[in-house]
This record gives sequence, C-alpha cells and structure tokens, in this order.
Amino acid sequence: MRAAVVGASGYVGGELIRLLINHPRIELARVIARGDALGPVTALWPHLRGLTDLVVEAAEVVDVAQDVDVIFLALPHGVTQDVVGSLFEADGTPRTPARIIDLSGDFRLRDATLYPRWYQVEHRFPHLLGRFVYGLSEWAREELAGARYVACPGCFATAIELALAPLAAAQALPADVTVVAATGSTGSGKKPVAGTHHPARATNYKLYKVLDHQHTPEIHALLGGLGQAPRLDFIPASAPMTHGIFATAMLRCDDPDALAQRVLDAYQHAPFVRVQEGSPELNHVVGSNFADLGLMTAPGALVIAAAIDNTLKGAAGQAVQNLNLMLGFDERDGLRLAPSLP
Amino acid sequence: MRAAVVGASGYVGGELIRLLINHPRIELARVIARGDALGPVTALWPHLRGLTDLVVEAAEVVDVAQDVDVIFLALPHGVTQDVVGSLFEADGTPRTPARIIDLSGDFRLRDATLYPRWYQVEHRFPHLLGRFVYGLSEWAREELAGARYVACPGCFATAIELALAPLAAAQALPADVTVVAATGSTGSGKKPVAGTHHPARATNYKLYKVLDHQHTPEIHALLGGLGQAPRLDFIPASAPMTHGIFATAMLRCDDPDALAQRVLDAYQHAPFVRVQEGSPELNHVVGSNFADLGLMTAPGALVIAAAIDNTLKGAAGQAVQNLNLMLGFDERDGLRLAPSLP
Amino acid sequence: MRAAVVGASGYVGGELIRLLINHPRIELARVIARGDALGPVTALWPHLRGLTDLVVEAAEVVDVAQDVDVIFLALPHGVTQDVVGSLFEADGTPRTPARIIDLSGDFRLRDATLYPRWYQVEHRFPHLLGRFVYGLSEWAREELAGARYVACPGCFATAIELALAPLAAAQALPADVTVVAATGSTGSGKKPVAGTHHPARATNYKLYKVLDHQHTPEIHALLGGLGQAPRLDFIPASAPMTHGIFATAMLRCDDPDALAQRVLDAYQHAPFVRVQEGSPELNHVVGSNFADLGLMTAPGALVIAAAIDNTLKGAAGQAVQNLNLMLGFDERDGLRLAPSLP
Amino acid sequence: MRAAVVGASGYVGGELIRLLINHPRIELARVIARGDALGPVTALWPHLRGLTDLVVEAAEVVDVAQDVDVIFLALPHGVTQDVVGSLFEADGTPRTPARIIDLSGDFRLRDATLYPRWYQVEHRFPHLLGRFVYGLSEWAREELAGARYVACPGCFATAIELALAPLAAAQALPADVTVVAATGSTGSGKKPVAGTHHPARATNYKLYKVLDHQHTPEIHALLGGLGQAPRLDFIPASAPMTHGIFATAMLRCDDPDALAQRVLDAYQHAPFVRVQEGSPELNHVVGSNFADLGLMTAPGALVIAAAIDNTLKGAAGQAVQNLNLMLGFDERDGLRLAPSLP
Repeated sequence: MRAAVVGASGYVGGELIRLLINHPRIELARVIARGDALGPVTALWPHLRGLTDLVVEAAEVVDVAQDVDVIFLALPHGVTQDVVGSLFEADGTPRTPARIIDLSGDFRLRDATLYPRWYQVEHRFPHLLGRFVYGLSEWAREELAGARYVACPGCFATAIELALAPLAAAQALPADVTVVAATGSTGSGKKPVAGTHHPARATNYKLYKVLDHQHTPEIHALLGGLGQAPRLDFIPASAPMTHGIFATAMLRCDDPDALAQRVLDAYQHAPFVRVQEGSPELNHVVGSNFADLGLMTAPGALVIAAAIDNTLKGAAGQAVQNLNLMLGFDERDGLRLAPSLP
Repeated sequence: MRAAVVGASGYVGGELIRLLINHPRIELARVIARGDALGPVTALWPHLRGLTDLVVEAAEVVDVAQDVDVIFLALPHGVTQDVVGSLFEADGTPRTPARIIDLSGDFRLRDATLYPRWYQVEHRFPHLLGRFVYGLSEWAREELAGARYVACPGCFATAIELALAPLAAAQALPADVTVVAATGSTGSGKKPVAGTHHPARATNYKLYKVLDHQHTPEIHALLGGLGQAPRLDFIPASAPMTHGIFATAMLRCDDPDALAQRVLDAYQHAPFVRVQEGSPELNHVVGSNFADLGLMTAPGALVIAAAIDNTLKGAAGQAVQNLNLMLGFDERDGLRLAPSLP
Repeated sequence: MRAAVVGASGYVGGELIRLLINHPRIELARVIARGDALGPVTALWPHLRGLTDLVVEAAEVVDVAQDVDVIFLALPHGVTQDVVGSLFEADGTPRTPARIIDLSGDFRLRDATLYPRWYQVEHRFPHLLGRFVYGLSEWAREELAGARYVACPGCFATAIELALAPLAAAQALPADVTVVAATGSTGSGKKPVAGTHHPARATNYKLYKVLDHQHTPEIHALLGGLGQAPRLDFIPASAPMTHGIFATAMLRCDDPDALAQRVLDAYQHAPFVRVQEGSPELNHVVGSNFADLGLMTAPGALVIAAAIDNTLKGAAGQAVQNLNLMLGFDERDGLRLAPSLP
Repeated sequence: MRAAVVGASGYVGGELIRLLINHPRIELARVIARGDALGPVTALWPHLRGLTDLVVEAAEVVDVAQDVDVIFLALPHGVTQDVVGSLFEADGTPRTPARIIDLSGDFRLRDATLYPRWYQVEHRFPHLLGRFVYGLSEWAREELAGARYVACPGCFATAIELALAPLAAAQALPADVTVVAATGSTGSGKKPVAGTHHPARATNYKLYKVLDHQHTPEIHALLGGLGQAPRLDFIPASAPMTHGIFATAMLRCDDPDALAQRVLDAYQHAPFVRVQEGSPELNHVVGSNFADLGLMTAPGALVIAAAIDNTLKGAAGQAVQNLNLMLGFDERDGLRLAPSLP
C-alpha cells in the first residue's frame, strides 16, 4: 500500500511522516507541501534525519491521488474542502480510486449548515459530507472496515467522545455534562502566534473559546448518533505543556458506580483505550496512541477524565489507526509506541 | 508593630519573610523554625541575601509571643493547633496579648467534628475555634478590624470563594456548582515528594483528591455564612506550573448576565480583586496579591474563572492583607507588588 | 523628577513602567508607543491593572522631552539612533534639557565603525556616541553621577562584564576567556518568532550566534577600558526558561584562589552584586535586580558564573539603578525587589 | 535471545524495558527489582499498560543469569560491583554463560585506583575491570563484536566523547578543552531530591560538580586510548528540561575547518550520529537514540556541540545498540525511534 501525506509542513503532517516511515505495511511514497517547504523532508523536519530520504513536492493532489492508495490530508480547515472537491467530479463521481483520510474539520459534520456558525465558512461541497465516515476508531470499526473516505475527529473531540460514548450508547448520560479540557501548545499549530509565544505560555493558564469551541458540534453528533446527546458545556483551557489533552467530565447521576462500570466494560477489547479507577496522567500517554480514561466517583457524581497525546491519538495516530481498520490490518500496526518516560 | 514568623523554613514562611521585610509599617522582629533551619535567614533563603540580617531561632512560640505584637503561624496542619493551644490557658484565657494570624487549616472550621473527616485528626482545642475570624479579606473586613485571631483561607478556597461569594451573598447560586481548579507545584510545599519530582511534574497533568479535597468544608461554611451554600463538586488538578491556582466554576442559571453583573459589582472597591469579561490569566497575577476574576456567559450558563498566586493571595499575601485590615493600615501596604512580566 | 518611557509595548518598556510606578522618588509622567498600543497602559499590560491609570500616547519624543526630566528609551536597535538624533541639533547641541537613558545597543559603542559589523547598520550619528556613559552601574558610579546621557549595557554583556571586570581592572585576566551563557526567552522580545514558539522552546536547548554575538564588542570595550581585554570566545545558548541569563566563564590561570579573592573584594559595597563560593542559581535572582556571582576553583582553573534576570539587572532594573546614581538617590530606590520564591 | 533487566524500578531500567519489549530479535524474559517494586511491570510503569504482561521479580541475579542470554544491569554505582562479583568465582571464572551489559559506573574504568577519588568507594573486584569493554558504540564496534561484558559510558561521557573522539584519534586536539554541558532532570534518577523538586528546578539553572564530575576519568581514558587525552575542564549544569544532555566543547586551534572536517568524516557510516554545521537542538534527539553533533568555527576557534537524550543514547539506547553490536544484529534493531515532535 502506497500512501501520500499532503500538508507536510504542519505538526500533524510531520507526525504522519514520522509514523508512516516506520509502518510495517505502508510505504510512504509521496510527501506534498507548499512551495516554501520543498526539498528533502529532513530539511523541513531535521529530527527525521537518518530515517528517510523522501523529498517534499508541490504536486497537485489530484495527480498524486493517481499514484497512491491512500492520501492523508493534514491541511487547515477551509483549504481542505477545495482539495477534496478537486478529487471528485461535479456529480460526485470520484476522479481517483485513492482513499482519503482527512484530519481537518471540513468533513467531520454531516450537517453543512453548521459550518458557518462553527467554522466561519460556507461549505462549498455539502454533497460530499455524507461520503465521509467519522473516524472515532473505537466506535466506528464497522464503518471503517472498507471505508474509502474518513474524517478524523478533532483532538478535544477524541478525548471527550471516548469518555462519554459508552454512556451515550447506553442512554445513561445525565441531561447536562460539564467538560473542562486543558491542551498543550502543539494544538495551536506550527506558526508562532501570541498564544504560543514562549514567555507568555510557559507559566500561564487561561481559558479560551469558552462554551464556543468548534469541536462541540461533532461531539454532539457522535453522541447523538450513538444514542443520546446531552447538553454539553465545554470549557477549553490553554495549559503550559507542549503535548497532551486532559479532559475532565463532570456527571451528576444517581448511580455513579453503574455508569463507571459501563465505561470499564466498553473498552475491554480496545487496544488503545486503557480505563482505570483514579486519575489518568498525561505523562502516561504523551508520545503514544493511548487514550487513558480515569473514573472517580462520589455520591451522586461521576468524574471521567481522559488523557491523550493531541498529536497522536488526537490526530496522526488515530489517522493511522483508522487506516489499519480500513485495510483490515492489525489495529496496532505502526503504533506500538510506548509513551516516553517518565 | 513588631511581628514574628513561625515556620520560616516552608514556602509560606519564606514568602512571609519576603513581604514583611519590605512592609512600611511592620518590623519583622523574630523568625522561628526548627533546629535544622537555624542560622541566618539568608542561609535558609539565599534569594534574600542583601535584604535582611535576621537570624532564624528555635524559640518557644509562647516566649516569642511576649516580644511581638503579631505572630504569623506558617506551620503544618495538626502541628499548629498545639502551638496555638500553648498560647492559651486551659480556660481559654490568652497567655499573651499577641495577635495570631494562622495560615494552616487548623482554625478555619468552626465545627470541630469536621476535622477527623477532612484532616484525619481529632481537634484538640475545639473551644478555641470560635475565637478565629475566617480571613477571606474582601468578605471579612468588618470582623478583621480589631480582630485578634485570624485563620487565613486555603489557597484553593480563596480562589473559589472569591468567585462564588457575590452570588452566595445574593442567594443567586444554582443548587449545584462544579469547580475544576489547577494548582502549581509550590502548593505541595518545600519537601520533595513523588508528585513534585521534576521529571514527573514538568510535562504532566492529573487530578487528585477528586471530590474529596480538605478545602471543601471551609468553602461550604463561608458561602453558607454569606447566605447560601450550593452543592460543590470540586475537582483539583495538578498542573505543570510552579505558582498559581486557576479555578473554573461552571454555573447553570437562567440569567447569566445578571449573575455576572453581581460579581462585577461586588468588587468595585476591592483593590486586589480585578473582575473582567473573558478569561483571566495566571501570568497576570503570579508574583502579586491580585485575584483576577473572569466572566464568560452563554445561554443558560455562567463560567467564572479565578486566578491567584497560591503563595501570595492564596497564603502569605492575604495574611499580610489581613494584618493591614486588623490594624487599620492601608490594605495595600507592603503588597504593591506588580506581577512579574510577562 | 518626571520620567517618560518611550517604547512601552516591548518587554523592557513594560518592566520600566512596572518599576517606575512604584519608585519612591520618580513620577512616571508620560508613556509613549506606536499607534497600535495606544490607550490605557493596562490595556497593553493587563498585569498592571489596579496599579496605574497612565495612558499610552503616540507623541513625538522631542516634544515629550520638553515635559520631563528623564527619558527612558526602550526601542529597537537602529530605530533608537534616529530618536536620539532628533533630540540634538545638527551641531550636537541638545534641543532639550532632558536626561536620556537608552536601553538599545545604539549608543553602547564608542567606535562607530563597529556598527556595520555587529549591528548591520551604518551609524548615522557617530558624533553623539561620545556623549553617552556606558552604564554598567557598579563600574561607572563616578561617570554616572551627574551624567546626562547613559547607554545601558546589553543583558549578556551585564552578566559577563560583572564577572570579568574585577580581573580586568587588576590586569589579571588570562589571554583567553571562554564564556557559555544561557538565556531565557524574554530576551528575544515580545514578538512571536520561530525561536520563541512554545512547542519549539519549552523543552529545547541550542546555541545561536556562536562566537558572533553583538554584545561581544561592548564587553571588549568595557574590559579594555578597565585595564585589559582578553580574547573572548562567547557562546550564547537558548534555554527553556522565560527569564534569566546564566553565564559561565572559564579562566585558566596560575593562582585561581587569588583571582577569586579579587572578585570577592570588588563587590563588598555593591548592594546588587552578591558574590559567593559555589554556583549561583537563576532562582535566586529572577524577579530582582541582583547579580549573583559564583566562584569555583580547581588547580589551574577558575570558573566564574553570573546569574541575572535579563529584564531587570540586564535591562530595566539596571536602567533605574543608573537613574538613581545619576540623580544621587539611594542606588536601591525602587529596586528593593526580593526575587520571587522559590 | 532472552534478556533480563535488573534494576527495573529506576528510570534507566524503565527505558530498557520499554525498548526491549519492542525489540524484534530479543525476548525480554525476566525483570528484576527490589521488594517494593514487585508485581506487574505495569504497576511500576503504568505508561506501559497494554504493551507487556511481564512481572517484576526479586530473584537473585546469579539465578536469573542461568536462564537468559544477556543481563542488563541498571543499578546504582557501588551496588553493581557486588552483583557482578556474584556472577564470578573468586578466581575470575564466570559462573554463568550470560552476557552482561552494565549501565553503572562500576566497570567503566580500567584503573581501580580511580574509584576512591571519583566514586568514593574502594573497588572490591579490581580483577574484573579488565573484562569489560567500554561501550561507546561508535568507537568500540570491533571489541563489541563478540564481547561478553560491556560497561556502557555515562550520559555526559557519551556526549562529550562523541564530540572529541574524532580529534583524539587524529591527535588533533588542543592541549586544553573546555566543556560546559547542561543536563535534564531525569539524569538525577527517580527518587525525589532537593535538586529535582519541581518548584526549585522548573525555572532554574545552576552548575554542579564543577571541574569535579565523576565522568571525567572515563572521558580521559577513552580519549587517551584513541590517541590523545587533553586537559579537560568539564563544567556540568543543571537545566530546566526533563530529558537531554547538551554539551558545548570549546577548542582553540589553528585550523578549525580542518578539525571540523575530521568530525564530519568520522561519522559518515554511523547510523546514530548526525553531524551538521551549526548548532544541534535537543528537540531533534530527545526520544531517540541519535547523537547530533554541530560544528561552528571562527578564526582560531572550533565549537563542537553534542545533543543526546540522556536516557537513550546516554543510557538504555546505547545499551541496546551495544547488544546489537555484540550479537551481530543490525545496529538499529529496536532503536528506529524517531524523536518526538517538535
């Protein structure tokens, strides 16, 4: 299987390259980026010197798609939909047989009318939205098997959905759920901005997009599709780590132990979701594709915490996991990454 | 006015010394610690070289109390009550005229029966609990004026109480409030332990004492005393900063704007509480005695965030502020610290 | 005494404001910046809310200079010389009586021919260079007393010069000195760039401008002026702190103890330079105007380490110290800042 | 090939387990530690959940040695020599055929008389010192092929030796070399101590063991063995990272470009040593077994900087690399770790 990564110069593109060059069943064949990133991959990503001789090209995606079996799109929201659009005829007929695994937000929502509200753009290809499987790996294994087009969940969405999905599927969620979720700075991307300026970030903590984050509607849709969508009050926080998302969900409920048991049961056979009593820790997952869920109860209350590496389980790792599931590979191929110590 | 600091070798003791040697109306006269910390203050705290010639002694507190006007107690929970006990006769008559400002948890609660549950000790001086004013500065100005004994709130408690007190006083709180609050590592004290080991803390994030933190009952008591105590689900988090507490309170309510306005109004004349729309930032308060409150609303929801420096407004700074209020000084004396930049 | 800060929107400008609003003998009267920073100082620097009502203006510096006794210039290299030029007639006659304290590199060197090499600009006002005292406070007290124009040393230069000056003055330096000096990210200024992008900086360490840093010639000039300029191999490093410079100087010599004693002796009466045996620590100086020097010896070798806060002793703090010395104030006025703990 | 890790509860032991469970040609068969660490490996190292079912035992090493082909010793200095001693008869005859790869300092030096000076212990098995190959992988390939006993270099030593070895082998080093090397906190081990207390470490920088670090004699011996041992003034620094060593070597020399070329040439065929012009960065190596060397020149001066991950190339990674070389495997087996991004 030959793969291409489009958007090689961003953090997610870089992580995809890192994973794919070590994947036992995939050949990373093409690496695409814009003009200022052209040349050896290792000029763009010096940490990969000695591991790859690939060269970054500026080719048209539609041409690349003729040459590979699967395309990973690691492009910004808004830009992605035009690239995807270029791979289809106006009537929706695919112009190439290549699979597409998209890591942007452009094909996560089925309802095109949500895009202006949450992404500040009118969707230009609403007829293609239905083609994409929403790839929360553990809850989409069946659709993923054989799927051609997959939209990978957002980083916050992955953590929150994994925590709440078992209860949504059992229609056991309370009517209101509060989630406070802290993210590391890589979530803001590779371009230096005020919020990721080291002097301002290294010792800081603040909230942003409070009750207004663009991952909210995809969480709502996923949970609703499983059985039940609660009111979700989602409060994102900017914390002084480089990697990781740590989401804390507060659920008031009559029988917290029963709900906790449902979460424990749900992931018995999921190789990348580890459920435990007590709090997870970012240190146990950063550098890996694991999602650690922690369960803490008190009378009338269940706290579910979820910890992931935003660049792996929250982006490139889950994308590779999805590819494995699409192609019938072992789900863990290329992802047997132990978190770094400590 | 002559002051003594008892417990000079902990972080709170160190901060008290730092503040008091620059206080315009207080003379720091005596500094007390255990045997292994004796000698020049600057041997214990090298960052203060050039600023003080004081010497750490091992004197009995009851003797020190004869020599000063006010004693700051910066000792661990459990230990403190014996020291305070030594300053009173068995019938509760004070053995010295010295004022006491305690920074431990030992005299924060009026109800002695709460100590075994929350502090794992039977209180040995329950008859003295009623002598202490609970010193949340902005909400205790009248009691503090002329008070002799003050128990300063805990660091988490200070942040959370400042956020919720205006609504408790107006009996406008919802029945349930969820608070997730992240703390820096200085909150764990000066002694190295697993949770503050740099390799394990520097890039980590985890929860601890979930729905079970010992500051919960003092928050409950303060809010109840003001008018209304909600169910409080308090979830503490350990974050990779050295300083600061950032508390996020989620309130579901019918009229979030009206509640937000109450918070804005409450602190119009409080020099150390700055209320704003939008999120506060730890960087704006660390190194100062300020508490920054941020208000964020959505239909049916009010988020109040509070940011303080745990060692200052959450401990030594509020203690000095309380002293100023006890003695009728300008509340800001010795506390005109601008947060460090950035 | 009325002062103005020009360049309020940079880190050094922000620190100057923070220091001057608390200075007991100076009134900060005017705050100047470019158009996008206009409005209340606290809109630009929210951490100062509650401490100042000053407003940032866009006035011409030559007009401001008529209104104040001293102007602090916290502007970029290259820009500063035009501003200074505007305060003099073509023949060098001052157009205003205001004192100038410059924190850029534009007036640190006496020899105009060095500017193209080290600052990539031709100096446009070489005849004004001789007007400025080079303000390394501890070694320029006499010139500073009564001086009108002062150029403050660079941050690296301050640390390195304080370490080596006692030996240069005694002509006791070896012919070659190697200095490796690590800096925090505030040294790169407030504008986000690749080198201060949090994901890339928070866990990184690298060298930059190796044997080619623009502070080299001012160090050479200062040491030469005192008595002896060695060959200096200066290797700057970018380290994952926000504040602080830590310089390590390696000197091979016959009698390291004698040299160490000279350093100890030199600062007996300098309130801001603390000399000790063993290594200094950044934590002991960050947030203060102190420079801590540490002396470590082995047969044939003396290591002198210097630790300062780059924004204080390395910039705004030394500028205020220089003002105090110019005006005959107590050197410590406005600078009795204890480093923050720990 | 079956392997055992002895000393599973330390950071180096944890990293060895992490590497060996993913090694394609090694079966990690036994994991040994002291009593308080017994039970599942994943109880000790929760980040490895889902990756191993191994159990930590308290077995005697001599018994374990009968059961495996190679033993990795990740024990403290001083303790290790007794364990190694137990594997030999008094006359030096091995009691087991197992290979030993030691990561302590106990068998790095050939000259037993150096131990009291540098390790504060008398060596109890001086007759065994000569059995061990000093395993700086890139410079010991021939001895390692077929070796039975290997002592892996210290972390600082690895970085400094890789930088200087090409010039020592060419007898091209100057008589004096100064090295300043900064280390992350994992280098101090897993036990919390004052120097790794997060509040004291997270924003700090200081020197320690200046001109007195115990890695000095092994560097001296390695360089001397290659052809030339200069006077080495080695200044270690404690920096606020968790991982990584960054060593900066300053060499005064007549022809820096020729020397730089020698370093470039030396590692043409070394898969884990990447040489470049300009500074390396810790971010490019942390999480991998790479050593990045950077070359910077000025007239009369050559700066060589070396960056490694202290827990990988500086410890567990090099140990596995050595095993590969001992057994004739591909040097990169089990070590195709790309550094984490960014």
